[in-house]
Amino acid sequence: MRPSGRAPDEMRAINIETGFTKHAEGSCLISFGDTRVLCTASVERNVPPWLRGKGEGWVTGEYSMLPRATHTRGAREAAKGKQSGRTQEIQRLIGRSLRAVVDLRKLGERQITLDCDVIQADGGTRTASITGAWIALRLAINGLIAAGDIKEDPITGQVAAISCGIFKGTPVLDLDYDEDSSADADANFVLITGGQIAEVQATAEGATYDEEGLLRLLRLARIGCDRIFTAQLDAVK
Amino acid sequence: MRPSGRAPDEMRAINIETGFTKHAEGSCLISFGDTRVLCTASVERNVPPWLRGKGEGWVTGEYSMLPRATHTRGAREAAKGKQSGRTQEIQRLIGRSLRAVVDLRKLGERQITLDCDVIQADGGTRTASITGAWIALRLAINGLIAAGDIKEDPITGQVAAISCGIFKGTPVLDLDYDEDSSADADANFVLITGGQIAEVQATAEGATYDEEGLLRLLRLARIGCDRIFTAQLDAVK
Amino acid sequence: MRPSGRAPDEMRAINIETGFTKHAEGSCLISFGDTRVLCTASVERNVPPWLRGKGEGWVTGEYSMLPRATHTRGAREAAKGKQSGRTQEIQRLIGRSLRAVVDLRKLGERQITLDCDVIQADGGTRTASITGAWIALRLAINGLIAAGDIKEDPITGQVAAISCGIFKGTPVLDLDYDEDSSADADANFVLITGGQIAEVQATAEGATYDEEGLLRLLRLARIGCDRIFTAQLDAVK
Amino acid sequence: MRPSGRAPDEMRAINIETGFTKHAEGSCLISFGDTRVLCTASVERNVPPWLRGKGEGWVTGEYSMLPRATHTRGAREAAKGKQSGRTQEIQRLIGRSLRAVVDLRKLGERQITLDCDVIQADGGTRTASITGAWIALRLAINGLIAAGDIKEDPITGQVAAISCGIFKGTPVLDLDYDEDSSADADANFVLITGGQIAEVQATAEGATYDEEGLLRLLRLARIGCDRIFTAQLDAVK
Amino acid sequence: MRPSGRAPDEMRAINIETGFTKHAEGSCLISFGDTRVLCTASVERNVPPWLRGKGEGWVTGEYSMLPRATHTRGAREAAKGKQSGRTQEIQRLIGRSLRAVVDLRKLGERQITLDCDVIQADGGTRTASITGAWIALRLAINGLIAAGDIKEDPITGQVAAISCGIFKGTPVLDLDYDEDSSADADANFVLITGGQIAEVQATAEGATYDEEGLLRLLRLARIGCDRIFTAQLDAVK
Amino acid sequence: MRPSGRAPDEMRAINIETGFTKHAEGSCLISFGDTRVLCTASVERNVPPWLRGKGEGWVTGEYSMLPRATHTRGAREAAKGKQSGRTQEIQRLIGRSLRAVVDLRKLGERQITLDCDVIQADGGTRTASITGAWIALRLAINGLIAAGDIKEDPITGQVAAISCGIFKGTPVLDLDYDEDSSADADANFVLITGGQIAEVQATAEGATYDEEGLLRLLRLARIGCDRIFTAQLDAVK
Repeated sequence: MRPSGRAPDEMRAINIETGFTKHAEGSCLISFGDTRVLCTASVERNVPPWLRGKGEGWVTGEYSMLPRATHTRGAREAAKGKQSGRTQEIQRLIGRSLRAVVDLRKLGERQITLDCDVIQADGGTRTASITGAWIALRLAINGLIAAGDIKEDPITGQVAAISCGIFKGTPVLDLDYDEDSSADADANFVLITGGQIAEVQATAEGATYDEEGLLRLLRLARIGCDRIFTAQLDAVK
Repeated sequence: MRPSGRAPDEMRAINIETGFTKHAEGSCLISFGDTRVLCTASVERNVPPWLRGKGEGWVTGEYSMLPRATHTRGAREAAKGKQSGRTQEIQRLIGRSLRAVVDLRKLGERQITLDCDVIQADGGTRTASITGAWIALRLAINGLIAAGDIKEDPITGQVAAISCGIFKGTPVLDLDYDEDSSADADANFVLITGGQIAEVQATAEGATYDEEGLLRLLRLARIGCDRIFTAQLDAVK
Repeated sequence: MRPSGRAPDEMRAINIETGFTKHAEGSCLISFGDTRVLCTASVERNVPPWLRGKGEGWVTGEYSMLPRATHTRGAREAAKGKQSGRTQEIQRLIGRSLRAVVDLRKLGERQITLDCDVIQADGGTRTASITGAWIALRLAINGLIAAGDIKEDPITGQVAAISCGIFKGTPVLDLDYDEDSSADADANFVLITGGQIAEVQATAEGATYDEEGLLRLLRLARIGCDRIFTAQLDAVK
Repeated sequence: MRPSGRAPDEMRAINIETGFTKHAEGSCLISFGDTRVLCTASVERNVPPWLRGKGEGWVTGEYSMLPRATHTRGAREAAKGKQSGRTQEIQRLIGRSLRAVVDLRKLGERQITLDCDVIQADGGTRTASITGAWIALRLAINGLIAAGDIKEDPITGQVAAISCGIFKGTPVLDLDYDEDSSADADANFVLITGGQIAEVQATAEGATYDEEGLLRLLRLARIGCDRIFTAQLDAVK
Repeated sequence: MRPSGRAPDEMRAINIETGFTKHAEGSCLISFGDTRVLCTASVERNVPPWLRGKGEGWVTGEYSMLPRATHTRGAREAAKGKQSGRTQEIQRLIGRSLRAVVDLRKLGERQITLDCDVIQADGGTRTASITGAWIALRLAINGLIAAGDIKEDPITGQVAAISCGIFKGTPVLDLDYDEDSSADADANFVLITGGQIAEVQATAEGATYDEEGLLRLLRLARIGCDRIFTAQLDAVK
Repeated sequence: MRPSGRAPDEMRAINIETGFTKHAEGSCLISFGDTRVLCTASVERNVPPWLRGKGEGWVTGEYSMLPRATHTRGAREAAKGKQSGRTQEIQRLIGRSLRAVVDLRKLGERQITLDCDVIQADGGTRTASITGAWIALRLAINGLIAAGDIKEDPITGQVAAISCGIFKGTPVLDLDYDEDSSADADANFVLITGGQIAEVQATAEGATYDEEGLLRLLRLARIGCDRIFTAQLDAVK
């Protein structure tokens, strides 16, 4: 049924290469099949203005696609002079998702920026970004702890994300580009270890969906995120 | 429990004044309590470049807050030279939601822009915008049909939206600003007559939530949208 | 003669609804016939950099048209990424006009921003903006005085504005859109109680005009502004 | 009384050097005392989109100050990424003033851009720009006529501009920077040969003014513009 | 002498991984030591406006650094809303250098964009970009020839680039970041197979240099580029 | 051979008019034939953020073309909202070149901005800018020394720039527009009194060049700059 021949609840191969760049405090190149995203965590001592002097930190995300990450070349946002609505939406989602598992007080007056740059796109770039960003964050905070800069671990759990959708009437897990571009509904789930939900974004594309459909997608997402949680732990060991 | 004294499943008073402006093909001023949004539908014969010559139409949304719609004055996006990520996210949601109930082929090569300008904000501006935009759209298309410009009604159903959230541990319907700013989770539901879902955006703020929480919010949203569907029908009669 | 059937020195009906929005320190929805402008006054404690520490305040204006205030939809300036020359010209005029009746030293180190957002346009939006802005300002300053924040009233008089023009050879008062778009000359007068002039902007459009023409327009403007001064006082009582 | 020792109705020395640059179809460097503006007229065959195919031309103006035209260096608008409100206001005024003396139908489908770049500023840069722009325009159109590109002269008269103001209670002609920065009222008049008025912009600065004041300024402006009309004719001979 | 312990004419290890991304018509990840740049060639059928209908093609370059390619995080140009002068300078150099070895007429009416995105920076990113861009271009054109889209090979030679500099008084080849940031002079050479020069950019930083110094740097560059030419050929075999 | 009839090593007439504007601390209008650039030096007490409190100064350059400096009118960068890559490249070159002859410590905590505005262009605008900027800088610093603001002269030498190129196979000095637009190679040399080189930028346009060609261009540049050094000294005497 699926163009890739995968079973409905079958994910693409996950591959994680930590320490992909040497300057960042934490980094990984994460792949879900042909989707590849470079995630880096940068630790800086200055927090946004509204947090200064409060002893709290901040975690934020940025996202971009390289111009030829996609089938046809897209113009650079830097050349166009502004970031698209899609980019900004994804950036906000990455930051919010990661903050859901960080105790900002324990982080101290530091900002960690999670840069997610898509090297190659084949569907699911925002969920791969969130998943990889957690790894980069974990590595960066491990470094802060090892250096004695932070005493208590500010990370309260793992966060992972996966897309699911209704493709030709069937709920399927981890959409690739072929599926994503013709799915009836497309949902991104951001889940946390322990069964909690950080974010659900479920959008009807060709057809609307019902409560039962939403629940079946959520169950697929749980299957996917459980596998991702394991892969994340393996990667940061 | 609620700052306003409302019951958990009690909505604010809905008020709809159609024909609020004379130039737009369809318009209304919609209020949910103190939240007031002016929604106008503008019909134009030119569609976006990628649709030209295909005989299909397009429906899109734009959103803005007047600078003093809020407690403290916000700088104009026109003066800052760009629209915020939040504005763009909401605009995309409005367009997507309305397109879920329009058969673009029956619309013919026309673009309808739904402008949602927040006159006064007290929580739920994006859901009021979607709800009011449907009314403006319905009125504009009624005009096109009456003028003989369109033969078959392109509108396939009603769409309405409402926010729900978990406030001090209790799921509540139709958050106002006081609740919104301190809710643990905040969800926007876009529902369609007949029980279908167009969009779910559920975000953990202070605390994450679980599947049961998501379902309880969805049930509240159904209660709210059923009331809104009735109010929409009354308004366009 | 006039498309509306009005006499040359006959104004459109003026309607003023004060307190139109609840967050602003002062506000009104002002109408001159079908032209409707929402004017709000926002008081903030921070003045522009060049005034800091001088114990003086500042009054400034901002202006915008909602996209469908006009016959055909105009693109949002926020979406285009910049304010038009026309918008900036009008904003500067609003600020200058209001400052003509405010003793900035008595205002203390406060900035009052007068936002004029055109809900519906039918000619004379800038003059309606100035006229309504004075009301919003008066209400805001009444509030500051009532709260004991200001001791002496910084407002030194009333300011009002009206457009006049030479339409088909005849000087007429308070141009509506039909007249404005085909007038030979178009003039905006900003007058102050007591017979003083704050600003004259008189522009030849189709034909130039002479000194006698200018004076006849000024006399019409005096008639108009006297009526407006009365309406302003009624509104703020 | 005047810082320069001039009589109230005494203008600064006018100096006009035509053909200052070789590429422009018409050009001059015009000086009013220490105010020096380079005005060029550029003829192009493409008109703005809304005029295409109508057989009519267009005349437009652009204005800029070199960064160190003024006492203290001003940042470049190109570096700041946008033109100020003041610049746009002046550009619009230049275009409007010149169009008042051009029959756009006789111009044919051509656009003439009048670039006014202030080399040195000492008050009255906008009025010097309009005055010099007429000379550049006249020279450019002389060239078109000489080349046989235009049959009938599209220029219907001369246009000149001058600033006047009330300085220490006395109406004075042709304000320099010292006067301009402390005048009670500041007015710019754009006059046309034959006694007609193209534009009046009279602004109260420190104090408001009355009808008598406006008329006295207008009379000074007539004196000034009559001298300028003669200087323009001498220059283009 | 050199921080890295290299001999003055010793280059860093060059590593080239072709086909690094699957969508681009040609691509490679090129490394000079720790400097890593992803170069992709994108073939499109539309040429810039000034070339349309002339039967000629165009080759252009774009350049960007990922935010954490460097020791400390740099803000995204897309977020800042404009590309820096440095970025634009490098982009222009990349395009010019590659066009030096392409017969644009043989390319036909096609544009090839060479995107050079710096994954990790350690000095010499612009020269690595040019060097890698040639490989991506070669692979893309091989594809066009193989597909029969182009008959004659439009590539007339190889182009490579390398930086040299005077470091603590000694001319050295292939500066890394430590050397680059404290060199007295810094030169980038773009050379072509056969001994020709496409571009020299030699800049005094701490101290100026003389003709002899320039020639010694050029000789080092020849040594370096000869090695690069070999590596390029190996990579595209 | 040369369109102008000049010998290969013959420069155009150099003309320098110092004190061209009265507000700048130093200024000149410099001409190389028909190329005319207004150079001004503005002294300000605030240095860029990264230098504050270090007791050092900064010298920077800005560059712009008036819209009709060229054969056909170019759009204003201020109207387009950004500076072109070419403009930024030239600005950076001007600043770098002048800093090569200034001891920033002796300058004290001051910034000097060298504005180079091209009044008329006929090739070689960037080299004329650098050459004229030195004169403006020298005059400004003379003023600082005369006023006792600076004790030791921070200028360590003269800097001048000239373009050379290979035109129809022959190396020629000081390209004018006709030559520049059809030269095979185009080089800009920035030289310093005493035989040192500050910058070489040599670009192949139609054809590449070899080492011998580069050296012949450098020798021409030495001839040219020696003449310029003399002209500079005459001008500032």
